[in-house]
Amino acid sequence: MKLQNVLPKDIERRSMEIIGEELGELKIDHEKIDIVKRVIHTSADFDYARTLHFSDGVVGKALDALKKGVTIVTDTNMACIGINKMGMEKLGVKAVCFMSDPDVAARAKEAGTTMAAACMEKACTVEGPVIIAIGNAPTALVRLDELVREGKINPELVIGVPVGFVNVVESKEIIMKTGVPYIVASGRKGGSNVAAAICNALIYKLTRK
Amino acid sequence: MKLQNVLPKDIERRSMEIIGEELGELKIDHEKIDIVKRVIHTSADFDYARTLHFSDGVVGKALDALKKGVTIVTDTNMACIGINKMGMEKLGVKAVCFMSDPDVAARAKEAGTTMAAACMEKACTVEGPVIIAIGNAPTALVRLDELVREGKINPELVIGVPVGFVNVVESKEIIMKTGVPYIVASGRKGGSNVAAAICNALIYKLTRK
Repeated sequence: MKLQNVLPKDIERRSMEIIGEELGELKIDHEKIDIVKRVIHTSADFDYARTLHFSDGVVGKALDALKKGVTIVTDTNMACIGINKMGMEKLGVKAVCFMSDPDVAARAKEAGTTMAAACMEKACTVEGPVIIAIGNAPTALVRLDELVREGKINPELVIGVPVGFVNVVESKEIIMKTGVPYIVASGRKGGSNVAAAICNALIYKLTRK
Repeated sequence: MKLQNVLPKDIERRSMEIIGEELGELKIDHEKIDIVKRVIHTSADFDYARTLHFSDGVVGKALDALKKGVTIVTDTNMACIGINKMGMEKLGVKAVCFMSDPDVAARAKEAGTTMAAACMEKACTVEGPVIIAIGNAPTALVRLDELVREGKINPELVIGVPVGFVNVVESKEIIMKTGVPYIVASGRKGGSNVAAAICNALIYKLTRK
């Protein structure tokens, strides 16, 4: 097979062009198209053009949050490390993941819950505005819904893209009714890569001009 | 929607059961089924049952490499951090990624190539046996093919699952002809999560009995 001759600096631009051509991008809202395309870029899966759901005005709200130096709390170290460091530095944004913290393990064990659910409890203690980005654990979204309803946390944005087979579909339905600004991939698909890609698409809207 | 009542410790087992039921697991080789199922577990994408390709005897060769304390070289920090630490410790295996190394950036700039291709050159300097796990950059696979042919590296296993739209399909075709033991996801799909999942499926074969 013959390789295309594309310079390193042009690979991403050419990829986005191909995605745009195959997507017929006119069908998707201008504000959302960068996010949909970046998720497809990271997954090569055009299903996301159909499954990504956005609450009203969520993109503007997310950008406002990023501008005020939000903390992004992820449910996996993979998602956390996948968020663009240079972009976060420019914005004064930081990303954290509590999954390896001993106090989270202890809390999960005591409550008979998952580490990811216990991470959401720890997220309530973060100072300042937070974005919650869930790419793995539906139990995190379910616990987050409870914590929001109890008034313990009020996230600027919830990225709800856990992946899998047990309570994943249900957890996404739940969080879309919580009343928080959300970007959710309905169905079983998602992942840490998708969570990071959505964060990056939002960050690049502000930092790559 | 009603949540299923599944205990945290049972979520993964129940997920694998569902995947097995939907997959009709009898159709896939016994040795490979754990790998295929774990990739579907991490992606919720049954396409991989059809696209994952294994060179002859690759699973046995990969397990032998893991038993002798191989170094896994990844092309992303996401894949690197996604490989199970406890499993690696048990086996004396380590995972490294050179993507943030200043000498790699300098080499890529000088050669007009990608960082990922320069990482493969650095991988040639790793002492002892190596597994190369590529979840992002087709340019890494293309450079790796050249380095193997030049006798500069002889990996125990190449996990070739880059994702994307420019030279991704082609790079996978190339590496399957290089003459190295491989596990490759043909087509556009793949990712850092898929690369890590394949590493973990192999590690768990030896560490979870």
